[in-house]
Amino acid sequence: MTETAAAAAAIVAIGSEMLGPLRQDTNSLWLSARLEELGIPVVRKSVVGDDPALIAEELSFMARSVRYVFTTGGLGPTADDVTVAAIAAWLGVRLERNEVFLEKMRHRFARRGFEMPACNAKQADFLAGAKVLENPRGTAPGFWVERGGVEVIILPGVPSEMREIMESSVLPVLLERAAGVVGRRRVLRIAGMGESAVEELVAPVYAKWKDDPVTILASPGEVQLHLAVRGAPDAAQAKLAAMEADFREVLGPRIFGEDAEDLARVVGRLLRETGRTLALAESCTGGMVASLVTDVPGSSRYFLGSVVTYANAAKEGLLGVDPGILRAAGAVSQEAALAMARGARARFDADVAVSVTGIAGPDGGSAEKPVGTVHFGLADRGDAAIGKKRLFGGDRSVIRRAASVQALELLRRYLAGQETPA
Amino acid sequence: MTETAAAAAAIVAIGSEMLGPLRQDTNSLWLSARLEELGIPVVRKSVVGDDPALIAEELSFMARSVRYVFTTGGLGPTADDVTVAAIAAWLGVRLERNEVFLEKMRHRFARRGFEMPACNAKQADFLAGAKVLENPRGTAPGFWVERGGVEVIILPGVPSEMREIMESSVLPVLLERAAGVVGRRRVLRIAGMGESAVEELVAPVYAKWKDDPVTILASPGEVQLHLAVRGAPDAAQAKLAAMEADFREVLGPRIFGEDAEDLARVVGRLLRETGRTLALAESCTGGMVASLVTDVPGSSRYFLGSVVTYANAAKEGLLGVDPGILRAAGAVSQEAALAMARGARARFDADVAVSVTGIAGPDGGSAEKPVGTVHFGLADRGDAAIGKKRLFGGDRSVIRRAASVQALELLRRYLAGQETPA
Repeated sequence: MTETAAAAAAIVAIGSEMLGPLRQDTNSLWLSARLEELGIPVVRKSVVGDDPALIAEELSFMARSVRYVFTTGGLGPTADDVTVAAIAAWLGVRLERNEVFLEKMRHRFARRGFEMPACNAKQADFLAGAKVLENPRGTAPGFWVERGGVEVIILPGVPSEMREIMESSVLPVLLERAAGVVGRRRVLRIAGMGESAVEELVAPVYAKWKDDPVTILASPGEVQLHLAVRGAPDAAQAKLAAMEADFREVLGPRIFGEDAEDLARVVGRLLRETGRTLALAESCTGGMVASLVTDVPGSSRYFLGSVVTYANAAKEGLLGVDPGILRAAGAVSQEAALAMARGARARFDADVAVSVTGIAGPDGGSAEKPVGTVHFGLADRGDAAIGKKRLFGGDRSVIRRAASVQALELLRRYLAGQETPA
Repeated sequence: MTETAAAAAAIVAIGSEMLGPLRQDTNSLWLSARLEELGIPVVRKSVVGDDPALIAEELSFMARSVRYVFTTGGLGPTADDVTVAAIAAWLGVRLERNEVFLEKMRHRFARRGFEMPACNAKQADFLAGAKVLENPRGTAPGFWVERGGVEVIILPGVPSEMREIMESSVLPVLLERAAGVVGRRRVLRIAGMGESAVEELVAPVYAKWKDDPVTILASPGEVQLHLAVRGAPDAAQAKLAAMEADFREVLGPRIFGEDAEDLARVVGRLLRETGRTLALAESCTGGMVASLVTDVPGSSRYFLGSVVTYANAAKEGLLGVDPGILRAAGAVSQEAALAMARGARARFDADVAVSVTGIAGPDGGSAEKPVGTVHFGLADRGDAAIGKKRLFGGDRSVIRRAASVQALELLRRYLAGQETPA
């Protein structure tokens, strides 16, 4: 093991299903981001099936070149969950049934009115001598073991459980050890602009910082700039701040948030800060905007509700949209969007309401209103309102997603005072 | 190398960018699907950086357990494209510059009005003794080499180029060798049951087919059984049908669909077949059920709309839920769920309506109604209705997802005649 390699990590995803065409390991993406921040490069990743012999071979191979091996998956109750048994064999330690933990599991099942299935008992078999990593979100705990200077961190495959264990029990320890070199990363998030439009704006800044990796990533409705630097903590922080300042100068209020702060959270914060309530009226997005808004814990404090009106009769009956508008301009029109927003605002007695109506495809498009045409409306307690029209590319799911993001971006700009009703 | 392993394959994706948080290898998904069809199981997958020493180690490791190693990536002209040089060193063969190929590359650049950059010349360095795999879509050819009974197939990382080379030069050869042996796969999908409950039910069938890999996979609200067999086409098909029949016998109508058919599509098909229309009333799922329903193209033919009522006032005003019910039983109660379903059915004049009301957390739980408590209602044009209660584990997003799936499963059982209103 070389000096450089001493700080490196490898990630092994365990599960036969991830060797087929239908499922992919995604835990390693999150893990490598977190490890990178601590200056621990991931030098190998692999997927191996639910086979104790193959798992042991994989660990032996990985252990030759890294200090840390992270495994994910195979901690469940079923017959093909073999990770703990395989690693016990690899380490040459025995499994010890933890009776206290077993009792706790039985209690948890009983509380929900079930008897614990017999197969779950094996989740109480702990690796002798291992540090147990508590799992607040699920049944199976993780483990942290050491063999010949290589540390193996055993994590569940369920992403939320894996993340929680890392955040609470693993990353704090690694952070303490990192001491010297760290990685620092900042994500700047922009909605309502295309990738090339963002790229044109930031080209000069890009050129200035060309020695540090800046990546542009696009997803439906959103563009992200990923800035990353490595170095001593203070120097890395200072450099990242300077880079960020340069990018913020050219992008200004187009940036809606940073890092993990998504648009629904930003909008939620702005609504809470200004003490306003929200209602929605959705057609082509079919509940996706409401679903994004209510993904945020505590959203019941500002979100009153939404009416999803796929049928025209519902637009009239539930939102009070004038049938004349639907006949003359059509359900996908600026007039209909504004009437839907006004109707939702009134029905829910909300401070502000946003509407979306459009053609997500694959059918329903015309020369005049092609698939991807989407109208947005915003109404508040005043008489005025905001209307917007966009034409999105992509398939049904991309159009729906992009339209949902755009609806939230319209609301954000209104709440931030960047758009005023006319 | 054992007899079983002789037919197996491993896939190595080469490229440091795929070790970071932003890029993922997806070529292996396509490759494993194609190989599986030929009866060649993929038993390992890995990602390794652009480092000749690490690539050589990886190949040596993979070569111990499989007959075929596929590499993707690292064939480009830049300094970090090192695959061919690394494999030459690993094989102990030299690189031979192919002057005819070099001249062709120069021509291609000239035709587009460019002079060929000097770095491109290395793409004309061929592995001595290798079979060259022509690349009709790009510059870099692939190679097929052999060492000690292990065959290494070297492919570009650009998906369209990789696929084209596989289709035209690799798969036909493997198909000829397969002489009969193919892989067949079936996914059986179940909703509304836990992973361990499914496992207990299928345990006897599992045991009967223990020589063929059956994998159980759980996601919020859904459990999947993945069945896979290998053999001569007819025999494989017959065996898969027999396995499937056994699993269907114990699971019966609990299976809602197979392969890529998700619950929203199944429900959509049943609604279309029976000519019925659907409305929804959602509280804790906040629009997610409607979003799943409208993800399906053509859903406007049977989906009328949804009312998302987060606030109690909206449950009363928009769905006509009796305030007395909300006061006496609370918004999260069987009575409220039934009243919401009846209200949504009437307001949209739908043939059937489904409702969800519950506590997704993290706040709002109590001893009597803990986080995860969710009530469901279903109402049709008759006077009767169906009510259900569930207690889901997990965090807010898992509870919301599981509750959305459960709402669709209730609807599916009703439409399939497995649940009748009382």
